[in-house]
Amino acid sequence: MVDNSFYNNKGPFSLSELANIIGCDCLGDKNKLIYDLAVVEEAKSNEICFITQKYKNLYKSSKAGAFIISKGIISKDNKNKLVSENPHFDMAKVASAFYPDSDYPKFFFSKTDQKTKLDKTIRVSENSFIHKNASIGNNSEIGLNSVIGPGVTIGKNCLIGDNVSIYFSKIGDNVKIYQGVKLGSEGFGFIMNKDEFKKIPQLGRVIVGNNVEIGANSTVDRGSIGDTIIDDYCMIDNIVHLGHNVKLGKRCIIAAMSGISGSTTIGDNVMIGGQVGISGHLKIGNNVRIAAKTGVMKNIEDNNVIAGYPSEKILDWHRNTIILKNLRKNDKKD
Amino acid sequence: MVDNSFYNNKGPFSLSELANIIGCDCLGDKNKLIYDLAVVEEAKSNEICFITQKYKNLYKSSKAGAFIISKGIISKDNKNKLVSENPHFDMAKVASAFYPDSDYPKFFFSKTDQKTKLDKTIRVSENSFIHKNASIGNNSEIGLNSVIGPGVTIGKNCLIGDNVSIYFSKIGDNVKIYQGVKLGSEGFGFIMNKDEFKKIPQLGRVIVGNNVEIGANSTVDRGSIGDTIIDDYCMIDNIVHLGHNVKLGKRCIIAAMSGISGSTTIGDNVMIGGQVGISGHLKIGNNVRIAAKTGVMKNIEDNNVIAGYPSEKILDWHRNTIILKNLRKNDKKD
Amino acid sequence: MVDNSFYNNKGPFSLSELANIIGCDCLGDKNKLIYDLAVVEEAKSNEICFITQKYKNLYKSSKAGAFIISKGIISKDNKNKLVSENPHFDMAKVASAFYPDSDYPKFFFSKTDQKTKLDKTIRVSENSFIHKNASIGNNSEIGLNSVIGPGVTIGKNCLIGDNVSIYFSKIGDNVKIYQGVKLGSEGFGFIMNKDEFKKIPQLGRVIVGNNVEIGANSTVDRGSIGDTIIDDYCMIDNIVHLGHNVKLGKRCIIAAMSGISGSTTIGDNVMIGGQVGISGHLKIGNNVRIAAKTGVMKNIEDNNVIAGYPSEKILDWHRNTIILKNLRKNDKKD
Repeated sequence: MVDNSFYNNKGPFSLSELANIIGCDCLGDKNKLIYDLAVVEEAKSNEICFITQKYKNLYKSSKAGAFIISKGIISKDNKNKLVSENPHFDMAKVASAFYPDSDYPKFFFSKTDQKTKLDKTIRVSENSFIHKNASIGNNSEIGLNSVIGPGVTIGKNCLIGDNVSIYFSKIGDNVKIYQGVKLGSEGFGFIMNKDEFKKIPQLGRVIVGNNVEIGANSTVDRGSIGDTIIDDYCMIDNIVHLGHNVKLGKRCIIAAMSGISGSTTIGDNVMIGGQVGISGHLKIGNNVRIAAKTGVMKNIEDNNVIAGYPSEKILDWHRNTIILKNLRKNDKKD
Repeated sequence: MVDNSFYNNKGPFSLSELANIIGCDCLGDKNKLIYDLAVVEEAKSNEICFITQKYKNLYKSSKAGAFIISKGIISKDNKNKLVSENPHFDMAKVASAFYPDSDYPKFFFSKTDQKTKLDKTIRVSENSFIHKNASIGNNSEIGLNSVIGPGVTIGKNCLIGDNVSIYFSKIGDNVKIYQGVKLGSEGFGFIMNKDEFKKIPQLGRVIVGNNVEIGANSTVDRGSIGDTIIDDYCMIDNIVHLGHNVKLGKRCIIAAMSGISGSTTIGDNVMIGGQVGISGHLKIGNNVRIAAKTGVMKNIEDNNVIAGYPSEKILDWHRNTIILKNLRKNDKKD
Repeated sequence: MVDNSFYNNKGPFSLSELANIIGCDCLGDKNKLIYDLAVVEEAKSNEICFITQKYKNLYKSSKAGAFIISKGIISKDNKNKLVSENPHFDMAKVASAFYPDSDYPKFFFSKTDQKTKLDKTIRVSENSFIHKNASIGNNSEIGLNSVIGPGVTIGKNCLIGDNVSIYFSKIGDNVKIYQGVKLGSEGFGFIMNKDEFKKIPQLGRVIVGNNVEIGANSTVDRGSIGDTIIDDYCMIDNIVHLGHNVKLGKRCIIAAMSGISGSTTIGDNVMIGGQVGISGHLKIGNNVRIAAKTGVMKNIEDNNVIAGYPSEKILDWHRNTIILKNLRKNDKKD
């Protein structure tokens, strides 16, 4: 389900209308009305999701009202199906039909969009723009030239620096967002179909817990479907990038210039050094420590300390260095 | 030739005036008038270029009206020459003479510089500044607190986010430039001569094709002489840096936090992972794929898949990891 | 000593009041008045500093009026002491007591805070904010939507781009700060005590010499106690991060996307390639050259050229690559 305080739903569509939009065959109740889209685990009986080989095992138990499903994995049952050669691509088409505004996210705001009444304890600086549908908690402070977009909620005692922009976000209490941060920016998602890129509509949010800090010029993309989540007490340094649907547990520390790719989940109490890169769709356990400049390309179990590119246990990485040093010595002797 | 819609040319200068500015000897027609500067391949009969050992083979066929040329490589001919101990340094001096404003690019704009009339289909947000000499296509949208500098052209159906700044750029149609992007920023170029840095005047542009996207807080430097080019359908993620005179082919994809150094040329359909670095003055072929965090220091032929630091074919890189793993095992056995 | 043009000192406190704030025992003159805090080397007779094992050898000669000192290293003498289980953590508590505003740095400014009179040679663009307590030298220029915070001083002939924010900084002459730079941003410092993060108050400044350039979207954190320093003629490219208390010597060159962690000192004439990372608390000598993407984790002597991750002398790094290449060949033969 998409949060309709941020995104304007043009549905419902009947199954046959959606088949028409995709240009595919439709099996089941053609008049069935579909009201929204969701990921397979969360889709309700009036929502549509997509199924590829990867998600096949979730199909049977899913409560979704319809499925965009790969030709090759169709089973005989009574579920409503749109038969697709490229379900991910066709899901993006359906998402664009439900949320056509998402292809061109709105950046135009005029004076009439601006909030005029705020609690007296809220301090908003010159040239900052608070959208009339945004909400800000008591005793929060907004710097100069910042933008708080429509539907955004910010909790109490928050500090927002200057030249910040926040869209599609729900922010807790005691949060500090420093200069130049872009929260809720566009996720980097598109599908290739033959020679054509199709932008995947970015329909999720950024959820920030309490007591979080985000350093200057960092960017946090909103979720594609579902949310990007930064849990309580996370400390994020300058020029950090979090991709769409990244999830940070509680008390994570991320040093400057690190980046986490889309859909990766990080446990609690994880410490990440500077200039670390973590690939997408990974699971990093609790209490993991990652040395500066590490390139992580696989899941990491709880309590590990890793380093290197590609990443290894930190002692193995140090041993690599020693082994190469010894090989250099032997080389010289030859 | 420099684009005089962006840069104010103080020429022409006679060859002897230029010899005087550099402080060097002059061979040929001392009264010859020079109207502009260019790179050796493009210089016309009333323009000057520079020649070092590296460009020696281009000298004979060049149509330039005069050359700043290294003492050591002078040949006896009728071409007009300024005899230099450091042609690159002296070219920068000449560039400053033609374009003195370029030493301090202009960032000051007042209300009287602001465009007041725009087509009704163009939506410009509060506190944004469009220079009166800029041009914006129909149905384009500009976010809050953004700057569109003098001479900039933006095509139709473009989306410019908030806190964006764009100078010295020509942008096509259907382009999306997200929050905090700086387009046309100052190239990182200077010459050392003995103990003195001389800033190289940055006199080029950024040329962006159609259907391009550039993610939040990315920076694209304009060309030094000549242009930085981003061709059609390129997709660029957040916090990416493109140096001066970088050229991207069509449909390139660059993930977050990657950087490409000055004067590197990238082919069509190149996919670049996150946190990749590519050195300057390289040529990357078509359909190349570069894994996340790769450090590229040499040219790459078409269709290669590479990884590592320094970069290797991706299979070789994986084999390095296996080899080190085996060496660690043997080490333990000893 | 903290610069009270930036930070508002709530002292003095008596030693017993400070013992109360920390919740610890106090040895010596309980009524002794403490006026400020400092690092051990600089603390005066009316100031307090902290001593851990690491700084033990500086204790005896220190002129500080009082010490927050680890339980285990107390010696019998007449010095005034607060006996601490975690001196760094308790120092942060004392810093918060002296400077409570530092826990929530101020980003709110209204029209009444704005400077109204400036020398005629100073050009300030639309929507820019100069705090009434800031000072700007003749012939300097400020771009659109930029912020010059309270107490900041900027020299003559400076160029400040658009969407820049500058706080807690003292800047020399002929300095160019390009679009989107954040100077004086919050240092990334906090102490863990059991399960609790305590933010370390950031009470220092950024000191920029003459003829410095800082590229678009770079960030420079101010010092924690003491200053972050960028000396004359440093050239810094786009998207560079300098942590709190970093010190750059004269004529350093830092290419794009490099980061230097807190308290590292860099000598004169150091050249740093792109995407380099340097760990905190290191000393890099004069004339050092660091190849692109290097990860530096130890001190570097003068005149070295290094590369790799972890960093080695550049020839050793190249030899690693050759050794691995040969091992791959032998592997194939087996």
